[in-house]
Amino acid sequence: MTTIQDVAKHAGVGAATVSRVLSGNGYVKQTTRERVMRSIEELNYTPNEMARNLFHGKSGIVAVIIPELSHPFFSEMVSAIEVGLCNLGYQTMVCNTFYEKNYELRYLEMLKRQRVDGIIFGAHTSLAAEMYQELQRPVIGLDRRLADTIPLVAADHVAGGRMAAEELIRSGCRNVVQFGEVEDSVITPASQRHFVFRKVVEANGVTCSAYPKQPSYSAYNTYQEAAARLFSEHPDVDGIFGTDLYAAACLQYALCHGIRVPEDVKIIAYDGTHITRFLNPDMTTICQPIQELADESVRLITELIKGNTIHEKEIILPVRLRRGNTTTGNAAAESTETDSTAALLQQ
Amino acid sequence: MTTIQDVAKHAGVGAATVSRVLSGNGYVKQTTRERVMRSIEELNYTPNEMARNLFHGKSGIVAVIIPELSHPFFSEMVSAIEVGLCNLGYQTMVCNTFYEKNYELRYLEMLKRQRVDGIIFGAHTSLAAEMYQELQRPVIGLDRRLADTIPLVAADHVAGGRMAAEELIRSGCRNVVQFGEVEDSVITPASQRHFVFRKVVEANGVTCSAYPKQPSYSAYNTYQEAAARLFSEHPDVDGIFGTDLYAAACLQYALCHGIRVPEDVKIIAYDGTHITRFLNPDMTTICQPIQELADESVRLITELIKGNTIHEKEIILPVRLRRGNTTTGNAAAESTETDSTAALLQQ
Repeated sequence: MTTIQDVAKHAGVGAATVSRVLSGNGYVKQTTRERVMRSIEELNYTPNEMARNLFHGKSGIVAVIIPELSHPFFSEMVSAIEVGLCNLGYQTMVCNTFYEKNYELRYLEMLKRQRVDGIIFGAHTSLAAEMYQELQRPVIGLDRRLADTIPLVAADHVAGGRMAAEELIRSGCRNVVQFGEVEDSVITPASQRHFVFRKVVEANGVTCSAYPKQPSYSAYNTYQEAAARLFSEHPDVDGIFGTDLYAAACLQYALCHGIRVPEDVKIIAYDGTHITRFLNPDMTTICQPIQELADESVRLITELIKGNTIHEKEIILPVRLRRGNTTTGNAAAESTETDSTAALLQQ
Repeated sequence: MTTIQDVAKHAGVGAATVSRVLSGNGYVKQTTRERVMRSIEELNYTPNEMARNLFHGKSGIVAVIIPELSHPFFSEMVSAIEVGLCNLGYQTMVCNTFYEKNYELRYLEMLKRQRVDGIIFGAHTSLAAEMYQELQRPVIGLDRRLADTIPLVAADHVAGGRMAAEELIRSGCRNVVQFGEVEDSVITPASQRHFVFRKVVEANGVTCSAYPKQPSYSAYNTYQEAAARLFSEHPDVDGIFGTDLYAAACLQYALCHGIRVPEDVKIIAYDGTHITRFLNPDMTTICQPIQELADESVRLITELIKGNTIHEKEIILPVRLRRGNTTTGNAAAESTETDSTAALLQQ
C-alpha cells in the first residue's frame, strides 16, 4: 500500500509538504505542488483522510461506548447511530465495555492515543467524570449522566416507570416484582424508573419486591434462572416488570409451568426491542424511542465536533406504552395525570 | 485539542520531525528530539496513534462490513469480533450496508480515503471482487465468497441444510416450506443450505416449497406478514425451515391461530441467536458457531495485517443441532452418514 512517505520520496519532498498539499493548508510552491500531485497520481495514492485529518486534528471517527453490542437494545441503538453518523460523513467505532472498569479504562487509553473526533458514551461507568473531560474532546452521555458539562440524551424513564406501574395497577395486580432495582449500583437515568415504579405501586397499596439485574447479557441461562427463582421465591406474584429479556424469560417460564398469562400473572417489558414482537401472547411493553435517542445523540455530537455550542444540557425523549396481551389494562382507565410524577420523585 | 502542528510550532520544527520523533523512524538530532519531547509534554499532547500510524501506513482500525447491525446474528457476531480485535489492540469500525449497493459503494469510497488496516466483509455484495482487491489492503470474507485470493470464513451450511432437512424428515413431515431460497439472488455460502435442504427432503419424497427472504430486517411486521402468507397459501404445511426470526414469527402465528406445534406443524430455526432461547415451546435450532466464526475472522485478518501469509483459502466451521420442542425427531434416529452431503451437492 502506498504511504504518504512513498509519495514524499517519489516527489523528492518531505512528508509534511505532501500533507500540506493534501490539506490545502500552508504555503507550498506551485512547482512543488505539481510535482507532488504527479507523484500522487503515478503511485495511485488515495488522498488519505488520515493524512488530511492529522493536519486538521480530525479523524472523521466517532466512538460509541456501550456495555454490550450483542444486547438487542444496544445493537438496535448503535445500528441507528451508525446510519446517522454515516449520513453526515462520519464513521463509527464501537467499544464494548462489558460493565467492566478495566475494559472502560482500556478504551479510554486507546481513545487518548487514537484520535476520535467525539464520543457517544452509553456504558455503565464507575470512573470519575474528570477522566472523560481529560480526553479534551466532545463527549455526550447516552442515557448516562457523566458531568454537568456533558450533555445527556435519555428516554423519559420517570414516565416509563410510572406507566409500567399504572398498567399493572390497572390490571389488578396486588403483589409485583421488578428486575433491576439495586441499592448500591451505578445510578443512571434509567434507574429512575425503578424508584418511580416502587413509589407508584406502593402508593396504591401494592406489595413490591425486587431482584437485581445480572451484570452481563451473554449468558442466556441467567435470565431463565432469574425467572425460575422469582416464581419459586414469590409463588404469589401477580405482576412482573423487567427489561425485554427478563420479561420474555418470565413469560416462557410461566407458560412452561402452567401459570397463565395474563390470568394468573401480568408481565410488562421495558425497552421494546425486536424480541417483544415475536412472543405469544404478545408482550405489553414500555418502548424506548431508540431511533430518536440515536438521532439526538448524532445531532449533539456532530454539533460539538463542529465547534458549535449546545444549549440543551439534557434531552429527555418520551417513551410509550404498547399494550399487548400480557396485561389487562385498558385505554379508557388510563390516568391522564402525568404531572404528578415530578412530585413523586421529590418525596 | 493539541495537534501535531501545535507541537511542531512550539518546538520550532516541522510536523514531519515531530512524527519522526513519535514513530522512532528516521534520523532526528538528539537536541531536536529533546526539544520536541519537551513540547509534547508542555502541551500535554497525547502521542497520537494517527500520527504514528500515518508514517507506518497503519491506523490500528479494522472495518467490519455487514448488512444490518441490528439483526441479532450480526450484532452477536460483531460484538464477538470487537472483543477479539480489542484484545489484540485493534479497534473496530462498523459499517451497515442494508443490502444496498449504494451504501456499499459509499463505504468503499470512505474506506479508500480512511485508512483502515483490514476489512472483514460480511455484507451481501453485488459488486465485482476487483473492487475489494483495488483497496490494496487485507480483506477476508465472513460467510461471503469474494474472490479466490480472499480467504473465506463460514459455517458449514451444507451440513446445516442437511441436518435441518433430516430433522424434519425424522419428525414425519411430508410437506415443508423453507424461507430464503431465491433463484436469482446473490449466492453466498449460506445459500447452499437451501439447495441441500431441498435435495434432501425431495430425495425422501417430501414436497418442498419456498419463499424468498425479505431484504431488510428492521420492519418486524414483514416477518409476521410472511408467516401469515405461508399458512394461508400452504394450509397443509407440516414443516417449516427459516432463520430465527422467520421461525419465531411462524411459531407465534401458529400458536395464535390454534395450530399446534409440534403436533400439527414442526418448525426448525437457523442461526441460533438469543431469540431462540426465549420462546415457548423452545425452538429446535441449527446453531451457527458465532463465537468461532468471529475468532477465526479476527485471527485471519490480523495475520494478514501483520503481513503473514494465510495458507487456508477457506475455513469452514461445524454447525450443530439444538433440539427443542418444535420438532419431534430423536437422537436415536439420527443419521450418521455425513459424507453423503458432498455427493448430494454434486448431483
